[in-house]
Amino acid sequence: MDQIRAGIVVTGTEVLTARIVDRNGPWLSERLRELGFDVVHITICRDRPEDIRAQLEFMHSQGVELVCTTGGLGPTADDLTATIVGEFCEREMYLDEPTLEKIREIIANFTRRMNWDTEALDAGSRKQAVVPRGADILGPAGTAPGLVVRPPEGSDKPIVFVLPGPPGELQAIWNEAIETETFKALQDRTVVFEEQMIRMIGVPESDIAKTLREFDEAEGLGDLEITTCLRKGEMEILVSHRPEDRAKRESLIAAFNAQYSGAIFSQSAETVDEQIVRLLDGRTIALAESCTGGLLAQRLTVPAGASKYFQGSAVTYTNAAKARVLSVPESELEEFGAVSPQVAKSMAEGALDVFQADFAVSITGIAGPDGGSKEKPVGTVEFYAVTADGRNRALSLVLPGRRQDVQERAATVALHLLRSLVSE
Amino acid sequence: MDQIRAGIVVTGTEVLTARIVDRNGPWLSERLRELGFDVVHITICRDRPEDIRAQLEFMHSQGVELVCTTGGLGPTADDLTATIVGEFCEREMYLDEPTLEKIREIIANFTRRMNWDTEALDAGSRKQAVVPRGADILGPAGTAPGLVVRPPEGSDKPIVFVLPGPPGELQAIWNEAIETETFKALQDRTVVFEEQMIRMIGVPESDIAKTLREFDEAEGLGDLEITTCLRKGEMEILVSHRPEDRAKRESLIAAFNAQYSGAIFSQSAETVDEQIVRLLDGRTIALAESCTGGLLAQRLTVPAGASKYFQGSAVTYTNAAKARVLSVPESELEEFGAVSPQVAKSMAEGALDVFQADFAVSITGIAGPDGGSKEKPVGTVEFYAVTADGRNRALSLVLPGRRQDVQERAATVALHLLRSLVSE
Repeated sequence: MDQIRAGIVVTGTEVLTARIVDRNGPWLSERLRELGFDVVHITICRDRPEDIRAQLEFMHSQGVELVCTTGGLGPTADDLTATIVGEFCEREMYLDEPTLEKIREIIANFTRRMNWDTEALDAGSRKQAVVPRGADILGPAGTAPGLVVRPPEGSDKPIVFVLPGPPGELQAIWNEAIETETFKALQDRTVVFEEQMIRMIGVPESDIAKTLREFDEAEGLGDLEITTCLRKGEMEILVSHRPEDRAKRESLIAAFNAQYSGAIFSQSAETVDEQIVRLLDGRTIALAESCTGGLLAQRLTVPAGASKYFQGSAVTYTNAAKARVLSVPESELEEFGAVSPQVAKSMAEGALDVFQADFAVSITGIAGPDGGSKEKPVGTVEFYAVTADGRNRALSLVLPGRRQDVQERAATVALHLLRSLVSE
Repeated sequence: MDQIRAGIVVTGTEVLTARIVDRNGPWLSERLRELGFDVVHITICRDRPEDIRAQLEFMHSQGVELVCTTGGLGPTADDLTATIVGEFCEREMYLDEPTLEKIREIIANFTRRMNWDTEALDAGSRKQAVVPRGADILGPAGTAPGLVVRPPEGSDKPIVFVLPGPPGELQAIWNEAIETETFKALQDRTVVFEEQMIRMIGVPESDIAKTLREFDEAEGLGDLEITTCLRKGEMEILVSHRPEDRAKRESLIAAFNAQYSGAIFSQSAETVDEQIVRLLDGRTIALAESCTGGLLAQRLTVPAGASKYFQGSAVTYTNAAKARVLSVPESELEEFGAVSPQVAKSMAEGALDVFQADFAVSITGIAGPDGGSKEKPVGTVEFYAVTADGRNRALSLVLPGRRQDVQERAATVALHLLRSLVSE
């Protein structure tokens, strides 16, 4: 049995022209993989009928049996996806009265206190209630219903999920889509791969390539699918395979463990962020940030429930702020400069004190592109981590890359430094 | 004269499987648009030869004359893009000795102090120096050279830019790519569109659709291309057109100005972030953040040179942190709760004082998914902006969406509140 091939068609001029970042393609790709589909192609185009049509035909030509489209379900005239998918699946379009009533009700609730043009709104609602004959109608969570559209009987065209563009609306109706009979019949024919992720720091990609070559020569990699990915200074290796190849995967992971035991920090899907939260186990952290400008605080407050462990961050961009908020001595700032081991230490100790936390970590550096010197080039970053009971770690690095890379890598390094203290 | 069609092929299993966010597709799309190309399709696939080949053939079938590929130029065996593009363009592959020497030199500089396996590294370098005959060789900025590959004489296949995956490396060699004779000959045949962006807040998409319909009925939209995009609570409208349709665009923009004068805050490409930086004109700002967890600080420190206007942010996630860092009275926290107009005011005043800034804005709210109540549902956010000379603005909102949406919209609202004070 093979995996069923799937594709994702992201429509929207604002996505193609880079005015918004597509969050739907990645989200759908993960969901489809979990459900046992081989996502082969993700394609992005404007809200132009001929381009959307071409992408649907391309998916068909590639043996894709399930396509998810996102976007183009809004109330405006350039939102055309439902009509084009209807044509592609050879389904007549009709105004679905129950759907229209649902949309009108949602709009009425939403606009009760607004002074919006109701005639314009109702034209939009009518447009959104026009759907292909025979489709399953999902939601709507916003005002745009999703659709599950089947091709005509006997056709080898794909089934199409027509999903709205706003990620919240799309995600809200996803479970409805995968509970339809149409989807379930498809899913029964696919096979869910097993996978394991290992994460390490400080190992170059070429070493990993060599280890893989050597393993292949000695034992053979067989049908294992291996992806290596370097991001924000960490190396991720994902090994996925059919259930029957489990022993092969375990053998490869053992080889990695033998060679890189010091560098591997995670052998599950767990990120360093998640490890820290787990290891904290009720204890609290505080941050003192300079060149990362709040990025590390933002990262640690992405999860719901962050208030259980996160006290706060003092984002002190200027010398004056470091002195006033974190009590960094003016003399240190003058003598050693804001980017120095001494100031990093005082910042972390200041954060520990002012936020009354169990752990604190500081970051002070030169993210660039300006501000570098011969002694302290762009990318120079000083870190200091400290605990309420006096344990500590210091680190000085010159990180490669542009401003955003330096900021992202510095945040990751600070987390690894913090982790080494939290896990003791 | 028409615009020349372009396409972008993003390769990489880590992108397709959503382990990293693609930054190259959007970046290239903007650059190509600026240069007068009509970017029609962006496609993403794994590092699988048959999938990359299928996408190149799809681009060809769609009349695309320039394809940019990104990724798949690394030292490992699954990095295959150069070879596949060579095949597609019917070019023989060869080891380019000068390129190999360049890569060796770069690697030697990089690994001088590292204890890495040099044999593994050199196998990688040799692989990266194998390129299609006749191609222009770009860089390398990292270790992977970029390529400009022409199809055989007389073929209607596209020209292919083969670019590396790391955004910093790709961007570093871009100018070399567009300065090749091959590219210049193509660019001479295309036409650069003019465009204008207007941005507004508080107007629903359906109103915009109605305004556009009415304008079309009255004067005709002609060949104007109009994209509307709602993001983080702001509405963006981009109007683009051939140079000869300028009067039509000006007439449409005038119609928007007549109808939405109060809601429009920008008629150029300038974002609210950029407006604030410009309007500050040397004056400084500080933040007091709670539910946004450093997101607004991070946003304001994205630009290089942020230290000119940004003093810092107190990310105070707990009541204790609000009291200690921002001097919020404990009595207010007890009586009104952390999410209250009173606490928002004290937070902003505390930030103004501790960071010694000219302006401060505070955000305290319930991002969810937990923590809501009947009186203060999830999405409730209190804002307060204040100046050193005592002017101020307060705002209470219930923002829609999930945790991340609430955080992003709250950051945007805070910037608009700040802008109203800074522009006075």
